[in-house]
Formats: sequence, structure tokens, C-alpha cells
Amino acid sequence: MDIRIKSGFFMAIFMLKISNRSNPMIAITRPTLLLNEKQCKTNIQRMANKAKRLNVQLVPHFKTHQSAEIGEWFKASGVESITVSSVKMAEFFAKSGWKDITIAFPFNMHEIPAVNKMLEQNITLTLFIVNSEVIHRLNETLIAPVNLFLEMDAGYGRSGVSTENMDKVKELVERINTGAKTKLYGLYCHPGNTYQTNSVDEIKGIWAEVIQKLTGVKTALGAVGESLKIRIGDTPGCSVVEEIQGVDEIGPGNYVFYDLVMNYLDVCNESDIAVAVACPVVAKNEGRNEIIIHGGAVHFSKDHLFDANEEKFFGEVVILEEDGWSPIVEGIKLVSISQEHGVLMANSAIFEAIEVGDILGILPIHSCLTANLMKSYTTFKGQEIKHMESL
Amino acid sequence: MDIRIKSGFFMAIFMLKISNRSNPMIAITRPTLLLNEKQCKTNIQRMANKAKRLNVQLVPHFKTHQSAEIGEWFKASGVESITVSSVKMAEFFAKSGWKDITIAFPFNMHEIPAVNKMLEQNITLTLFIVNSEVIHRLNETLIAPVNLFLEMDAGYGRSGVSTENMDKVKELVERINTGAKTKLYGLYCHPGNTYQTNSVDEIKGIWAEVIQKLTGVKTALGAVGESLKIRIGDTPGCSVVEEIQGVDEIGPGNYVFYDLVMNYLDVCNESDIAVAVACPVVAKNEGRNEIIIHGGAVHFSKDHLFDANEEKFFGEVVILEEDGWSPIVEGIKLVSISQEHGVLMANSAIFEAIEVGDILGILPIHSCLTANLMKSYTTFKGQEIKHMESL
Repeated sequence: MDIRIKSGFFMAIFMLKISNRSNPMIAITRPTLLLNEKQCKTNIQRMANKAKRLNVQLVPHFKTHQSAEIGEWFKASGVESITVSSVKMAEFFAKSGWKDITIAFPFNMHEIPAVNKMLEQNITLTLFIVNSEVIHRLNETLIAPVNLFLEMDAGYGRSGVSTENMDKVKELVERINTGAKTKLYGLYCHPGNTYQTNSVDEIKGIWAEVIQKLTGVKTALGAVGESLKIRIGDTPGCSVVEEIQGVDEIGPGNYVFYDLVMNYLDVCNESDIAVAVACPVVAKNEGRNEIIIHGGAVHFSKDHLFDANEEKFFGEVVILEEDGWSPIVEGIKLVSISQEHGVLMANSAIFEAIEVGDILGILPIHSCLTANLMKSYTTFKGQEIKHMESL
Repeated sequence: MDIRIKSGFFMAIFMLKISNRSNPMIAITRPTLLLNEKQCKTNIQRMANKAKRLNVQLVPHFKTHQSAEIGEWFKASGVESITVSSVKMAEFFAKSGWKDITIAFPFNMHEIPAVNKMLEQNITLTLFIVNSEVIHRLNETLIAPVNLFLEMDAGYGRSGVSTENMDKVKELVERINTGAKTKLYGLYCHPGNTYQTNSVDEIKGIWAEVIQKLTGVKTALGAVGESLKIRIGDTPGCSVVEEIQGVDEIGPGNYVFYDLVMNYLDVCNESDIAVAVACPVVAKNEGRNEIIIHGGAVHFSKDHLFDANEEKFFGEVVILEEDGWSPIVEGIKLVSISQEHGVLMANSAIFEAIEVGDILGILPIHSCLTANLMKSYTTFKGQEIKHMESL
């Protein structure tokens, strides 16, 4: 055996030998998205507890799970208001019984008929505004009032009005306040630059700056600004930041499952990751120590990370157990994917231990995109949980 | 106006002004995958003609479109046998009436029950073999015989038995031939390395080598090899290679739509691309010349190309017309995507010409993954064509 392998590895191989080919409660034949229901509920409850402790309202983002049933688990933890990333997703969760929905995407004016249908059903909707044309159109065509967040860009640089651009902020605020159908609710910021950090301190630094800039905008708006709510959205910050004076609401989403990106950012423990894709081993390439699995871009998307040697990879391997999975197995990685194929590169000992026909677990780089592609979840009890894309 | 803009651009802007905000036959409100039915049928017929001219059988790969209805267009061009990339896809097309299906993926032995169900319905199935365990299992558990392709690796390095490894080839052939349920059909090669080339000549060179290696394997097998069919699968080669002496069958898929990857490889003209995603413009960032569209990783996946300046991009912009779209607009590109957001970077003239509320067309980098995510097609007549993932 390869002596470079880390301790714990022998146990892992042993587990592979005994458990992987035995008969689990779920008979897996194809790529299957496994959901650790217990861990998922722990993640949901932990963020709910944190929001309570810090005295902010949690308005979780449902773009990660997109599931009516998982939505109910949030409801059980006290959540009443939710965030989504498209009008289509708002329609889905409105049908699932949610009455207070924020659509966290610069509002697309072609969606006004769909918004009016939800307003007819007395759904409270909060939309994102970044430009005056849309405010005008909303006031012309909505059948009932909506809340508006000014989406603010505090340095991330994707969408939103720059916090530096007070002229535009004031212009938008005035237009909103003079419209009968548009009610200014607050300032929203998704500091997605926390995804590009190298340490938790850096994430905290970004949040400190974002909070300072948002409260600065609020102050600069004078009396109009006083009642505005400040909401910040990213999972990295919501998971690790404790200093949130000035923030009223948080809207993270990914924490429901977490994933390897979050683990690499030190935002979650590896054991917090609540989803893994079970993939059948279909071939082994002796000589190259490569293992081919059924599991590719149509299951994982093409997000990747770089390991310590700057090598790109698309997922980590875990050994499936009856009610969970092992820690990440060292010495094997998902190194390339095409439409349906995944190629794992392994050291010799691991290569030898894996057989054609084994089912391996793969922790995803980005759980939101993986869930969106897999379109349903299977719990350890074999229960299938639907994703909105499968309906 | 910016004088660096290419000729033809003024016309493009003009078209943008006149057509884009007028009333097309399809009212687009959300990201919508437009299908140019006429071009798609031209692509289908052109490959059928080429196969006829070169006297090879065309067994098209359906992993790109995954649509029962588009499948019928192939049938109209004379196609009777098809290729798919998963057992799930085989089940779908068997239900859609196809009777002769190759599953072009190293066979996953957990799928034997699903294969037996299709055999019960008298579907002729051809599977991929790369290892002896699977041959043994097939012979033990199949209810009727299947054809087998030995998947060969002639240098691409993903899956398949190396053409250099005649010992393994012979071992597999012998095992297949001694089994009652396994009938050796031929040698299959997907030379995916044609996707990494810089010229059509390089693609032709790869094919020449692949053909030489496959015919070499056939010869080395002696009498057993004589009846074996040689099939090669990639769209780049099938589109541009004319010298195919020794090849019996071709199995390309992507050519049904083509995409920017194929255009960059000089394998198709830009005008051959038969799909574009219509995306609403939701915001403009003055100062940065950035335009935000609703169109992100859940619509395009995350495939990208690099432009002449080595800048990564995720799609090209076209102007939508009533029954087609313009050539690619120079001076604007889809430069970044997140889950639902797309960010276009434009030169000043184009930036000014585009308004919030416009619907832009985006040519995808990789049409297979885009179609898999969008899950339905809309023709210029407003007809919706289903993808198997929407059923």
C-alpha cells in the first residue's frame, strides 16, 4: 500500500470494502442526489438561531434548494418570509403557500403580468430596483402596491446602484416615493466578493465595509432613510460575521446544503455539507489510475476549484454509508467532466480498492447548480423530495 | 459613435432600434431557448447527405437535442438508428418509437434491469464495453442478446480501451464471443481531442490517425475482426473530414444545433448555429458599460471560450428578428455569469443603443448543456418543443 496516504485512509478503504457493495436502504442505479436531511435541518436551525441571537430577521434565499418540501423545514424553524432569484421561482413558492416573497434580481419589466397575478392572490412582494424606467413602468401597470429594495453595489461590481452614487440613489428614492404603487422598503446588498476571499477575516472585512457604506447611504438620505431596512445576502458573511450592528435582515441561501466552495472558504465544516451525488463506477483505466463514473456536467454543472497544487477539480469523493458518508477520501479527486462522464484520478492504493460497479459519493463544488441539474433529492430513508424543476 | 466598430455594425444597431422592441410573433418575458427550425433541419439533412455521399451509415447522437419531436426530423431524413448517452435517454427514445439504440457510455451494470425492460419491448440495443466484469454480468443476467461495441481510445484519453493494448482487446473479444447474450458488433471511438484543435487540418489529422489505429486493431484481430463495424463519433470530424476509408458508421450529435465552440473550431459557419437564448435586459451600469441580463449558469451552464485577447467569455450577442437573428454583434460579449445573472460588456455605442427591457439573443458556447438546462425550445412560430428533461 502507498505509504503517502493519510491516517484514517485504511479505515476508509475498509468501509469501502464492507459498505459500498452491500445493500443500502436505497438501491442506487444512476446518478442520484443524496440529501442528509438531519444535517440540512441542523444547518437551517443553526442560521435561525444565529439570526435570533443577533436580533436580525432571517429571510432565507430559496434558490439553492428550490423545493416546496424543504421550504417547510424552514417554516418549522420560524421563517415566514423568503427570498427567490426569479419570478418563476416566486410563482412556485407562492403556490406552495408562502405569502411574503422577495425577488432578489433586478426586476425584469416583462414579468409585470406574472407579478400582478401574484398580487391578486394577496402575496406580499418585494422587488429589486436599480433603474428609474422600471419604477415608472411599475406605477403605470401594477394592480396593487409592491415593496422595493434599492439594490446596492458596495464593491462587488455585479448589479446594483453604487453606494458612491448618491445622486442616482436620491433620484430613485424620489421616484419610488412619488409613485402610488411603489413603496420603498430598504437597501439590499449581495456582497458576492466574499466568495473570492482567502480567509474568514477577509469576509468580515468586506462585511464591515458593506455595513458602513449602507448605513452611510441611509444617513445621507436623511428622514427618508430612517425607516429603511438594511438586508445583506451572502452565505459566507451570514455564516461567519458576528458584528452586524446596523443590519436589520439577512438573506443567505447556500447554507441549507453548503458545498465545497463554502468549505474551502472556511465558512462551513466539511461535515456541514448536506448533499452528495451518488455516482456508479463504470470503468477503470489501469496505468493512468483513472476511474470513470457516470456523473458529468449534466449532474454537477462545470464549477470547479483549484487544489493546493493549482490543479483544477470538480468534486471530492466520499464513501457512502447507510445514513451518511465518510470524510473526504484523500488521494482521489474528480479531475475532469464532460456531458455524462466524470474522470477521477486516484493514487494506486485507492485505485485498487475501487471496483467497477461501486457507487461513490461526490461532494459538489456548487450545491445550487448541482441541485438545479439533479432536480430531485433522495433522503437516506429512500424518500424522494422534488425540486421545482422536476415539476 | 465609436469609430473602432466594424462595418455592418451600424446596420446592426439600426436593426436593434427597429426590431427588438417591436412585436415579434413570440412574446418573450423570460429566458427562452429559441430554435431556428429551418436551420436545424438543414443541419440534419446536410449530415444525412454527407453520410450518403461517403457511403457510411449515420447513427446520430441524440444527447444534444434530447427531444422526441426533433427526433422525428431525423427520421424524415432517413435515420433509423440512433445514439444516446445514458440508459435514461434510451428509455425516453424507446418510448418515442425508436427501435435501434446505441448507448454510447461505458455500460453501468446497475442498469441491467432497465436494459431488460427495453429488450422485452424488442428494442435492438448496442452497449459499450471497456471491461470484462461487465461482459460476465451481462451474460449472467440479460434476458436477450445485445450488440456490443468495444469502446476504443485512440489518443483522446477519456474512456475506452487503448488501441495499443491488444492483449486487453483480445481478452474482451474472446469473452464477448463466448457469451450467449453478448454479440460483438464493432469498434467505437469518440476522438474528443478534436475539440481541442486549432485548425480543420488538425481535426483531419486526428481522424486519419484514429482510422489507422482502429483498422489496425481490426486487422490484428484476424478473422474475428473482419465483420466488425468501425464507428466514429465527434461532430468536428464528422463535419469536416472527407477521407473516411475504413469507417462504416458515424455518430455525431452536436451538429443538429452547432454552437460557438464549433464555430471557433471552424467546423461550422456562424449562420449554421440553430439555437439562441433570448434574454431580457434588466439593468445597465453606466461608467462600466455593463449590461445585466436575465440569463446565467442555470440557462447556459458554465462553459466558456477565450477571445483573441485571452479574455474568458460565456456567449455572443445577436439581435433577434422575426424569423432569425443577426450576425454576431461585434463590440459586446457575455463576460460573466452567476446563477441567474449574466453580465455583458459593451463598447460605448452599443451600450447606448441597448435599453432596459430589450430582449437580446445569446449564442451559447455549448448547445448540449444549454438545451439540457433550458428544457424546451420555442420556434419562430411560437411553437414549444419539449426536451426530455421537461417531461
